[in-house]
Amino acid sequence: MKQPEEGQLLRIFIGEEDSYKGKPLYEAIVTKARELNLAGATVLRGIMGFGAHSRLHTTKILRLSEDMPMVIEIVDSVENIEKILPFLDETVDEGLITRENVKVIKYRHSKGGY
Amino acid sequence: MKQPEEGQLLRIFIGEEDSYKGKPLYEAIVTKARELNLAGATVLRGIMGFGAHSRLHTTKILRLSEDMPMVIEIVDSVENIEKILPFLDETVDEGLITRENVKVIKYRHSKGGY
Amino acid sequence: MKQPEEGQLLRIFIGEEDSYKGKPLYEAIVTKARELNLAGATVLRGIMGFGAHSRLHTTKILRLSEDMPMVIEIVDSVENIEKILPFLDETVDEGLITRENVKVIKYRHSKGGY
Repeated sequence: MKQPEEGQLLRIFIGEEDSYKGKPLYEAIVTKARELNLAGATVLRGIMGFGAHSRLHTTKILRLSEDMPMVIEIVDSVENIEKILPFLDETVDEGLITRENVKVIKYRHSKGGY
Repeated sequence: MKQPEEGQLLRIFIGEEDSYKGKPLYEAIVTKARELNLAGATVLRGIMGFGAHSRLHTTKILRLSEDMPMVIEIVDSVENIEKILPFLDETVDEGLITRENVKVIKYRHSKGGY
Repeated sequence: MKQPEEGQLLRIFIGEEDSYKGKPLYEAIVTKARELNLAGATVLRGIMGFGAHSRLHTTKILRLSEDMPMVIEIVDSVENIEKILPFLDETVDEGLITRENVKVIKYRHSKGGY
């Protein structure tokens, strides 16, 4: 059975309408994570929430604006996670980031050879 | 670069149809979190799952009932997280709560002065 | 107030189109988790992401293929979490698994007697 490695889970809580250079911030973060060759990134869209400034978002009330909470999850080694922090520091204006140690098991195609 | 603080991530796994005083329980929990001035709360809606009593929920099979699994994520300091626990103890009838230590970085508008 | 127990959170990052024996892999994993009587499993569907092989998935660009990132979250005791690992080792071809220690509080109906 595959053995786990030490790693970190980085979670970025921002708003759907937060933007960076004209595109959604969550998209910019995922693109940056891929450029940095991080192991993976996943964007989850919340259906309700609040964050900085206590603005409450919900799919029910704010039909028009729909600035839903987004969670971006990035998993990698501590060294790799640290590569994306300066970019987040520059681009996240309002939001919350959590970092925690996790055990990571990576599965990849055995075919094709790395 | 912003330095992280010690904090906790609280995750509440309940059902979409769980209710409290006539409104969805997930909504009641987010409202309570805001009342308590917690740093943020995000509601994620699962597309399949099971929990207490092993009832399996899926968007495919249970079209009519659609009692999907919901995850509510709340991030704050240990002290603040503890403020919402009695409310959860009172309102969550079936469900699962996880608590874990995380490093937290909070970003807020520099404008407006805190 | 209910006291927390030591437990683990297992998170499985795979693709929506990953399959096992003709059905979606995420469905196979949830079914297995229920067979093993694990305390709960929740499937979250991402709206964008990338993983093994750096394929970027997004609801916008890949309308046709829509191989969205999926996160399956399973919470239980260390002993129970370990029961599902051999199945994941066998079925997950490309993906990432994280494991972390969490405090768990389980709520169940007081009626019906356990």
